[in-house]
Amino acid sequence: MGYSDVDTLAINTIRILAADATFKSNSGHPGAPMGMAPVAHVLFNKIMNYNPKNSKWVNRDRFVLSNGHACMLQYALLHLCGYKVSMDDIKSFRTVDSVCPGHPEAHDTDGIEVTTGPLGQGFSNAVGLAIAQHHAAAEFNKPGFEVINNYTYTFLGDGCMQEGVASEAASLAGHLQLGNLIAIYDDNHISIDGDTNCSFTEDVIKRFEAYGWHCETITDGDDGLQNIEDAIKKCQAVKDKPSMIKLRTIIGFGSKLEGTHSVHGSPLKADDIKQLKTKWGFDPEKSFIVPQDVYDLYNKKGAEGAALEKEWEQMLTKYTESHKSEAADLKRRLAGDLPEGWEKNLPVYSPSDSAVASRKLSEIVLQKIHAAIPELVGGSADLTGSNLTRWKEAVDFQPPSLGIGDWSGRYIRYGVREHAMGAIMNGLAAYGTVLPYAGTFLNFVSYAAGAIRLSALSQVRVIWVATHDSIGLGEDGPTHQPIETLAHFRALPNCMVWRPADGNETSAAYYVALTSKHTPSVLALSRQNLPQLENSTIAHAIKGGYVVHENEKADITLVSTGSEVGICVDAVKYLKEKHNLAARVVSMPCFEVFDAQDKAYRLSILPDGIPSLSVEVMSTMGWERYTHEQFGLNRFGASGPYLDVYKKFEFTPEGISKRAVATVDFWKDVPNIRSPINRAFQQLI
Amino acid sequence: MGYSDVDTLAINTIRILAADATFKSNSGHPGAPMGMAPVAHVLFNKIMNYNPKNSKWVNRDRFVLSNGHACMLQYALLHLCGYKVSMDDIKSFRTVDSVCPGHPEAHDTDGIEVTTGPLGQGFSNAVGLAIAQHHAAAEFNKPGFEVINNYTYTFLGDGCMQEGVASEAASLAGHLQLGNLIAIYDDNHISIDGDTNCSFTEDVIKRFEAYGWHCETITDGDDGLQNIEDAIKKCQAVKDKPSMIKLRTIIGFGSKLEGTHSVHGSPLKADDIKQLKTKWGFDPEKSFIVPQDVYDLYNKKGAEGAALEKEWEQMLTKYTESHKSEAADLKRRLAGDLPEGWEKNLPVYSPSDSAVASRKLSEIVLQKIHAAIPELVGGSADLTGSNLTRWKEAVDFQPPSLGIGDWSGRYIRYGVREHAMGAIMNGLAAYGTVLPYAGTFLNFVSYAAGAIRLSALSQVRVIWVATHDSIGLGEDGPTHQPIETLAHFRALPNCMVWRPADGNETSAAYYVALTSKHTPSVLALSRQNLPQLENSTIAHAIKGGYVVHENEKADITLVSTGSEVGICVDAVKYLKEKHNLAARVVSMPCFEVFDAQDKAYRLSILPDGIPSLSVEVMSTMGWERYTHEQFGLNRFGASGPYLDVYKKFEFTPEGISKRAVATVDFWKDVPNIRSPINRAFQQLI
Ligand SMILES: [Ca+2]
Ligand SMILES: [Ca+2]
Repeated sequence: MGYSDVDTLAINTIRILAADATFKSNSGHPGAPMGMAPVAHVLFNKIMNYNPKNSKWVNRDRFVLSNGHACMLQYALLHLCGYKVSMDDIKSFRTVDSVCPGHPEAHDTDGIEVTTGPLGQGFSNAVGLAIAQHHAAAEFNKPGFEVINNYTYTFLGDGCMQEGVASEAASLAGHLQLGNLIAIYDDNHISIDGDTNCSFTEDVIKRFEAYGWHCETITDGDDGLQNIEDAIKKCQAVKDKPSMIKLRTIIGFGSKLEGTHSVHGSPLKADDIKQLKTKWGFDPEKSFIVPQDVYDLYNKKGAEGAALEKEWEQMLTKYTESHKSEAADLKRRLAGDLPEGWEKNLPVYSPSDSAVASRKLSEIVLQKIHAAIPELVGGSADLTGSNLTRWKEAVDFQPPSLGIGDWSGRYIRYGVREHAMGAIMNGLAAYGTVLPYAGTFLNFVSYAAGAIRLSALSQVRVIWVATHDSIGLGEDGPTHQPIETLAHFRALPNCMVWRPADGNETSAAYYVALTSKHTPSVLALSRQNLPQLENSTIAHAIKGGYVVHENEKADITLVSTGSEVGICVDAVKYLKEKHNLAARVVSMPCFEVFDAQDKAYRLSILPDGIPSLSVEVMSTMGWERYTHEQFGLNRFGASGPYLDVYKKFEFTPEGISKRAVATVDFWKDVPNIRSPINRAFQQLI
Repeated sequence: MGYSDVDTLAINTIRILAADATFKSNSGHPGAPMGMAPVAHVLFNKIMNYNPKNSKWVNRDRFVLSNGHACMLQYALLHLCGYKVSMDDIKSFRTVDSVCPGHPEAHDTDGIEVTTGPLGQGFSNAVGLAIAQHHAAAEFNKPGFEVINNYTYTFLGDGCMQEGVASEAASLAGHLQLGNLIAIYDDNHISIDGDTNCSFTEDVIKRFEAYGWHCETITDGDDGLQNIEDAIKKCQAVKDKPSMIKLRTIIGFGSKLEGTHSVHGSPLKADDIKQLKTKWGFDPEKSFIVPQDVYDLYNKKGAEGAALEKEWEQMLTKYTESHKSEAADLKRRLAGDLPEGWEKNLPVYSPSDSAVASRKLSEIVLQKIHAAIPELVGGSADLTGSNLTRWKEAVDFQPPSLGIGDWSGRYIRYGVREHAMGAIMNGLAAYGTVLPYAGTFLNFVSYAAGAIRLSALSQVRVIWVATHDSIGLGEDGPTHQPIETLAHFRALPNCMVWRPADGNETSAAYYVALTSKHTPSVLALSRQNLPQLENSTIAHAIKGGYVVHENEKADITLVSTGSEVGICVDAVKYLKEKHNLAARVVSMPCFEVFDAQDKAYRLSILPDGIPSLSVEVMSTMGWERYTHEQFGLNRFGASGPYLDVYKKFEFTPEGISKRAVATVDFWKDVPNIRSPINRAFQQLI
């Protein structure tokens, strides 16, 4: 094969496009695109299989730019390859509503696999994509039919290398022996603070070898195209380990300031760009230029990719004949649809059924639905026995050589790596054949905040089984008792927070989480047992809020979630007997879903005319949106048996009643009390 | 020296105390205490310098139990050593208001250095304690006076080893060559999911060597006391690297279930405890027993520690004679007091001063106060030039051998390691001689949520300089634009969130953050320039909320923070001109501080009788507590020049006015509009 002048021309074209676009937007990062243009060119021209005309082909090689600030590199490549990124799009880099935003966003731009930029995330997403590939291959490949065999490639810089989330993911990837994962580390010795020598002097190769990775080093990353290609091919041949290539590059290659942090996050000066263009044989007066030879080169590669997919489609046609159900299953999964009738497996409860912890109710759901939804792949951050996230017959996802599972296994032992678990789930969901859920304590979902934010932004369906959801966990104490956590994720756009109060609500939470194709969910589940409520049904609960206990002549509405709903129901009796007050009780397991109901419905649940009091054993923040008064816990909890802790903070029928009485008293002089559902104007959403 | 039967007796006493306490509370983790009792005994008897009668002696060796669930180990040791932990306290393990809660809490229990339990945090706190020690030694030691020379020891298990925050901290500790840090890794092959083989098969020693650590391995951790002592002493002798000892132990040593995950997180059965006691020569019918020989052994060690401190005090007396100002400075810092008059350095602005970004205003504060507050130690997670966290003359905290700073340097290059930065700051603050602050983008403070939660719970003074605080950062786009972040940290108890609107408010934020000894603060600061406001003064702003623009006959109150306050002031004119409505404007830079004002003050700012509208370019969650209507952004932002982004979402005088008109209209029929300040009852705080 070899490399010729047109390859150099292509590489310099990419470099200049990055310089031109950041200059025009007066914003962005030219340095990494200019340094990584050679390896990107080799990867996209000589290595990767993809069809620019169908960015959703399931067996395409995946590419993740973990150093997402280098996105002009990716936009330039997508344009050259022929994805739906025009030169006008590139000219609109970093302007409002452009498909070339400041960091790559998967839901906005054709050909972007995952949303990156927050450092460490993309690399960890890539681990998820590689897990999904191994899993899909084990599920769908049959003798004579290698339906799934793609590689996952990711670029990362010093920032990603330093982030803990990437360390966690790298350790797990090594353990899992993900042979189809190849990471290319841009070792340019520069980060924003200057030389990496000021904070980052570890031996990266040795660290990755310690994780169980195969490693290669390339010292001439600025022009050693053949060396780059050879190294990647060596990595491809290593089938029982993920690979990492340490690629020495010069940041901002070609600029007068190359090799310094000045080119990292600021556009080049006009005269610097001119000297680049002159030096590389471009017209210094013109911008956003792609020589036809370069387009031709990439068009050829694109045509080869289209032919590859066509060949694959022909194989799939034969596969469909001999493996009809597998082929149908693959197609269905890629559409994001669940198997017809799966929801009939959801357990249903009646008030006479015994009290059960919602973490256990969640386990029952998983036990009942896992056979009907084969794409469901679970896991836990080393809390399986506490989160109850594993159905009885589950097989672990493990490299077969370990003898404790196999590649088709549907349960991932994430280890104590919550943040990587979140980022890996984003990659799993992005692959297309997996619907991921995983468990940890609700309090430690916060460790993964960076990943969940990207689940929400990039609109992927992942489910957090977040058990031990409050002071109700008892003895473990304040270090483990969430106070702020629900407020945090309720405030995060496009993230559903569920806190079910009983069995039917738990089934409803799963129903909505599983059928919301473009939204992640956090299910907050109790450690302690919860009674089955009157009037709780799946149909009621999927509205996000409903009346558990009605009273036409109520003096007050108690609005609650999860473990406190049952206590509110008990408080109704207490209020009647001790204070002669009539109360109605609303359960509101999910704010976001309740907000999506029409106003008439919401007003029927939280009506005008009577005051309301929220009851939830954590921060009251956010409850003012629904209720007139709030009973919560705006302080840290306490270590002790959970009933003692509830008593200490007065979350008892008596304690609730005391606040209910105060609420009724405080609002009694207000005529025509208006429900907080009424608002002066609509929010921007 | 050597070890004798009394050492074995002491070790078994600790093991049985852990078994008895977890059995009595029917909750907790006996396995790790039983496995780590030998190394703990060696450490507390033969190695560490401490005085149980004065747990605050500054030159004590620090001990951090990073695997905090093993806290019965620590409580047993504190009791034996003679700290203020009685046998009754141990009997009350994991009950409400005990000083022996489910995980160690520094502010509750004598002798606990930092609050641990959330995995990975303690280890990272230990890195902070070791940094502080190196820094204090460089600042205070003088020829002939080694005032500060303590070691920091930390225990950690597989969970901490897997957490990314600990990986980040380990990498930085290696870079910083922290010779006085010794970590002991409990390599018991067990985590909650079972054998660590299911998720954690990396070569830990090789990884730590890659970070630049010295490593030792001990294979007989259950009884090789001399080997343990020798290994620790070898580590002490390595002065240019932190050390890690991989200690093979059997979890739950002595139990019939030793070596299995059954002993990790559940009490032993009664008959199992009896066989333990019988086997080790204890009365199987008695519980919570400490043989007198064991007390005598520990009392002797305690007396030696008291003598050591006395010797040190004598040295300090001489030091005080020859180094009066250093001695006074040390004393002052340890009391948590700031130097008298420091606040005179805070910059003050008038409305005619030019518009300045609040990140820049923050830099000006740091430039002006750093000389007056020598304990201030700054840093950034590789965003120094963006966060503007470094004063001009700052010296980096670096090992002198690198030639780019020294141990007395007051600026830490944390690298792209936000979570470790947070946990390290907790350790720095806990040491006593350092007041830490550090910067990153507000959006990435979320990466450190696990650490900040512990700052708040353990009541330490750390300051986050959180720049690029909103969609106002512009081009970097939604991946970098906080929406939920302020709601998250506002909901976290004992954490102050400041969003200053101009120069005087920025000075006020620093004033309150620096003088709040027991509370962490997050300062949300703008990338873009902000005008200096009329009526803004430090005295006003330190109340958390005040009137920027008064109008006795206002139709509406606009309540805002940070970059939106100036736009609200512009909206006043617009409202008057276009709609003939009179508006007053309130700036509320800090909810938590405003909440602490008396009700009369709060009602004077947010009075009855007129409707109010909050204006903040992020989640409206929480604003319902202060205002009748809310204008915010309950969706993700957009990438583009910031003024375009503000315009897209209508955060302009016109957009604000539109909502103000709707608010006035919506509330015009309500008589005697009640300010949300009025509440039916007080919150639990
Ligand atoms: Ca770099
Ligand atoms: Ca372990």
